[in-house]
Amino acid sequence: MFPAFTADPAAWHDATEAHTCPATAEIGGTVTLRLRTRLRPRRVQVLELRHGEILAFAAHPCEAPYEGWAEKWYAYDLRLGSLQNRYIWRLDFEEDMLFVSTAGLKPVCPGYRDWYSVLADYQPPEWVWESVFYQIFPDRFRRGGSHPRPEPGAYAYPQLHPEVIGALSPGRSELERAALGAFPLRTPDWDEPLSIAEDAHTLYGGDLAGVQDALPYLEALGINALWLNPIFRSPSSHRYDTSDYREVDPHLGGEVAFDHLSTALRRRGMRLVLDGVFNHLGNEHALFQRAMADPQAPERDYFTFRAASPGQLPYHGFYDVPTLPKLDYTHEAAYREFIDGPDSVTRHWLRRGIDGWRLDVAQGMGTAGTDGGNLEILRRLKRAAREENPQAYVLGERFFDAEHALQDGRGEDGVMNYHGFGLPVMTWLTGRDKDGEPQRIDTEALVAHLWDAYRVLPLPVALNQFNLLESHDIARALYRLDGNAERYLGALGLLMAYPGAPCLYYGSEIGLSQPHGDSMNYARATFPWEESAWNRELLEGVRRLVQLRRSLPALQRGSLRFVGVGEHSFALLRELGEGGTLSRVMCLVSRSPQTTTLDLYLPPGGWRDLESGELTGVPGAEGSTRLSWQGTRLLIWESPVDQLHQPSSAQPRRRRVILN
Amino acid sequence: MFPAFTADPAAWHDATEAHTCPATAEIGGTVTLRLRTRLRPRRVQVLELRHGEILAFAAHPCEAPYEGWAEKWYAYDLRLGSLQNRYIWRLDFEEDMLFVSTAGLKPVCPGYRDWYSVLADYQPPEWVWESVFYQIFPDRFRRGGSHPRPEPGAYAYPQLHPEVIGALSPGRSELERAALGAFPLRTPDWDEPLSIAEDAHTLYGGDLAGVQDALPYLEALGINALWLNPIFRSPSSHRYDTSDYREVDPHLGGEVAFDHLSTALRRRGMRLVLDGVFNHLGNEHALFQRAMADPQAPERDYFTFRAASPGQLPYHGFYDVPTLPKLDYTHEAAYREFIDGPDSVTRHWLRRGIDGWRLDVAQGMGTAGTDGGNLEILRRLKRAAREENPQAYVLGERFFDAEHALQDGRGEDGVMNYHGFGLPVMTWLTGRDKDGEPQRIDTEALVAHLWDAYRVLPLPVALNQFNLLESHDIARALYRLDGNAERYLGALGLLMAYPGAPCLYYGSEIGLSQPHGDSMNYARATFPWEESAWNRELLEGVRRLVQLRRSLPALQRGSLRFVGVGEHSFALLRELGEGGTLSRVMCLVSRSPQTTTLDLYLPPGGWRDLESGELTGVPGAEGSTRLSWQGTRLLIWESPVDQLHQPSSAQPRRRRVILN
Repeated sequence: MFPAFTADPAAWHDATEAHTCPATAEIGGTVTLRLRTRLRPRRVQVLELRHGEILAFAAHPCEAPYEGWAEKWYAYDLRLGSLQNRYIWRLDFEEDMLFVSTAGLKPVCPGYRDWYSVLADYQPPEWVWESVFYQIFPDRFRRGGSHPRPEPGAYAYPQLHPEVIGALSPGRSELERAALGAFPLRTPDWDEPLSIAEDAHTLYGGDLAGVQDALPYLEALGINALWLNPIFRSPSSHRYDTSDYREVDPHLGGEVAFDHLSTALRRRGMRLVLDGVFNHLGNEHALFQRAMADPQAPERDYFTFRAASPGQLPYHGFYDVPTLPKLDYTHEAAYREFIDGPDSVTRHWLRRGIDGWRLDVAQGMGTAGTDGGNLEILRRLKRAAREENPQAYVLGERFFDAEHALQDGRGEDGVMNYHGFGLPVMTWLTGRDKDGEPQRIDTEALVAHLWDAYRVLPLPVALNQFNLLESHDIARALYRLDGNAERYLGALGLLMAYPGAPCLYYGSEIGLSQPHGDSMNYARATFPWEESAWNRELLEGVRRLVQLRRSLPALQRGSLRFVGVGEHSFALLRELGEGGTLSRVMCLVSRSPQTTTLDLYLPPGGWRDLESGELTGVPGAEGSTRLSWQGTRLLIWESPVDQLHQPSSAQPRRRRVILN
Repeated sequence: MFPAFTADPAAWHDATEAHTCPATAEIGGTVTLRLRTRLRPRRVQVLELRHGEILAFAAHPCEAPYEGWAEKWYAYDLRLGSLQNRYIWRLDFEEDMLFVSTAGLKPVCPGYRDWYSVLADYQPPEWVWESVFYQIFPDRFRRGGSHPRPEPGAYAYPQLHPEVIGALSPGRSELERAALGAFPLRTPDWDEPLSIAEDAHTLYGGDLAGVQDALPYLEALGINALWLNPIFRSPSSHRYDTSDYREVDPHLGGEVAFDHLSTALRRRGMRLVLDGVFNHLGNEHALFQRAMADPQAPERDYFTFRAASPGQLPYHGFYDVPTLPKLDYTHEAAYREFIDGPDSVTRHWLRRGIDGWRLDVAQGMGTAGTDGGNLEILRRLKRAAREENPQAYVLGERFFDAEHALQDGRGEDGVMNYHGFGLPVMTWLTGRDKDGEPQRIDTEALVAHLWDAYRVLPLPVALNQFNLLESHDIARALYRLDGNAERYLGALGLLMAYPGAPCLYYGSEIGLSQPHGDSMNYARATFPWEESAWNRELLEGVRRLVQLRRSLPALQRGSLRFVGVGEHSFALLRELGEGGTLSRVMCLVSRSPQTTTLDLYLPPGGWRDLESGELTGVPGAEGSTRLSWQGTRLLIWESPVDQLHQPSSAQPRRRRVILN
């Protein structure tokens, strides 16, 4: 039996066009499923789960959907009877039977979690698949506008209600009580280093005009989508405590700057995703002010107040932070204002032309201080978003496991893939978790974890995932990799090769790192625009990787499987049968500084290294082939096999076409 | 790392008393969790999932909850904040960290499916854990009453509505059309063999008085709970097409026979579970008759009628069988009558003293011909059942994966465990699936499947599972094992050792088998009460196994782990820390006729064979020990270790105490 860490390609099915066509249909419509196999079953069936019962139907031999492929194919027309249509394949042999599911080729009928799904009437925002995102923390990216900067000490932060200060003071340490006080606004120079761990009261002064000025730079890097951390009016530098969701912060340039940026982005074909903080709002928001001022105010419904108790906030706050009163979705009020009312915040900005929402603390949104009704909130939000823009991207921040939220396709399109990609990959590379604690992940465990998180999602959902190595909430990858730019490029190579949209974090591409790891604030340094400070080799490497990602459809839409796992290395394959042809890209990854040698389970053909142009031939049937490499390599499959023995120099032009 | 097929006992946590105490509490209450480990972590934490966020809390070293155990223990007080409270353990070392979850000891933080759960305010029907069930198909078990038997041809079956016959005739084969006709009632002699594959119109005449007469026999066998296939008025011999849910079928002796049986059972301390067919009813039921007679009748709400179409039933039926119109839970009408109305069928029979319901086609109950709202129906049913009897057992027939229905504890207590036990075990033993198709399951795949199905349920739910090897719906195990009584006993040994309540199928214990496998009807032969026909050795073997199950709390309430897997054999351990002591029972299983040798990962101590009395010593620390055996063996752990070298003859009295 094929190793447990991945699916056995001896019988293969996925949700790319060659295997599932069309990708979706309305309820009552039909999708043709196809299985490719090197085995010789006497009978092939599809087992469907229909309203609780498993029913078996015959599949039939069919033509191969692309040329030059010798395996046998079977087809079955699946009629979509409900929103999520689950099925597996059953192969009968003279002396045995096997089941083909997302868990691979298995002798036991698997549980439903392992079944394939076709989602009826499911329209993913496919532009996301073709995007390389760039995350910008607005206060720290670039200063461009001519609007006046506030004076130091112009206001103090945070502005807590006396009742809150009174409630929180008892039982607090001196330090904690001090934090309840208001700090005067700081406005350091752009190149003044980050010096304090907590600086919500520090405005460096980056703005939207700065973002707009940087668009040529970003476009040259290959970026075609931006995610901006919050831009709405807020007293803090992170702006997660929003005071007004319908006004762009004047410190960022206000409405005019937004409209200019929006127009400039559209002109360049670049997309914009904004940060929607609908789990909590800022304590200076008018709704909260009115709710605090009057216990009878109808605005009380937006929040969850609780009996006064010394040392405790009189309302539920996100992590009990006083500036972040949690919204309560028990009543329709919060839905109406933020989610799906006729002029909800969600709708408002989509109407103003944004392409999607990144939803802060998506995992926590709910009723009465809890996450009650969480999935329903996100479903309603997506329905509203799609009504405004059928290609709107609804991206959840779910720091942890999001399988339950994603697997039926009705809620968020995807989530920030910390759990299923970023956190385990970075830990595997560094031997430490995001907080710097020692954590050693063996490679087989890493691959098993990645594979399991990937395979349980329908492919069109998995492709919507938002993959990242770093963000404003965790330490920069380069810092975690001890500033080693080569290793960082290796990690980015994997990021670009992985299913889901990759996102770069501003500045890392030129070598921006951080002085400490003990506060998320240190990951938010200003972007140094003096080019002399840049690591140009790193920048060029990132650019090449981004171009590869954007030029290879198999990386954007292909299925995934792992084809080898060693002690410090592994290999994955992206495969896309589409339009009568089959394309494949392989990514070899190693965390070792030495040359790595690994046995890979590879389809025959020529594998061309996308950097060196070198061609490696894999003869004969799919099977074990030994390869050696260093760092991360991307290789593209070249078929037919008879081109195998052409000298590698015969192909450089093609490679350059791909790279540029 | 410990083999992937099970959890690593180097750090162990489960939901038995020593590790989770109390087993449950109300929301706001506290449960103490304990971890046992041979490792030397520098810090132990519990990670809780609270409203979407993962929060880490320190666990502290604590006393061992039972004597004579040298490992280190850590405790944490878990406050129950919601109905399902999820957590894992995190162990930090100088150079590493590990996570302890139901998936074992892993280097990556696992997805939520792998997390432990404590269910708040969850009261399992603990009598089920102490029960050995016996399934009776009433028409075929025993004839006892003096009520008159119907004459042959006294009525015809089925009685289809002319509209139905008209609708179904077009496009049917001759055979299918014939099946729409009515067959005259057959009333064969008790010992006339089953001769036809479909015999719903055949009454052998078993009745409730017969069941009552057999109680001494069943009690001697060790049985303490019965599940009766349907007993309410119905025109068929299987009675799944119920005509009146509030009347015991007169052919079974009617209400009087029921009350007598009920009283006799209570006197013997035996429990009774009835078959509740609430997915569909019989076409002769008055509700359906009225609905068919008048398109304006309010009774239409109970069913899902559809536009007439040649060859198709004018209403949704279970598997489109005309006699089985499917109930529709779109409206409250069906809920009121069957589920949770003030005098629902569910409540009615619990008030008349039954101990639980086995719910036919639980997986299919729902709205408008589908399974829509399925879980809600079962939740409401359980709430109503518990209101009538706080220890009522709500058992679902779910032929397939039931994880989604069981994992939060709010719906059925357990299901007929075909998916997670009976089907894969019997296929592993026989090389054929339940329909006789070749299917070879390698032992590691079997164990991985069993373990996965078990571990994702909270233990108090897993212990409610209803384990079986055979039933009225699939071929008898003895038949599938080619009549080999020794192998059948081996399979029963595993059944008795497995977490969940075991159920025997009437007659198998004396060697009743079946002539063919091509219809479920052949599994429903009459019980031969002439003892000369019995396999007395088999019966005695079954009796011994039942007694073991009933005398060993570790088999009733203990946790499970697998301690060895070979090519044709495996071993499992049941472990129960309770009342200051630790008890363990091991079950060795082999499908090979030869002696099997296997390396087992065993705790040190003496392991006494419960049949031979032989004692095997396992010295030193927990580790690999080689054992040889044949068939299925049950062994009990004897501690302290210093008794290890006593001759095995020193213990026979104790063994007999256990066995009798």
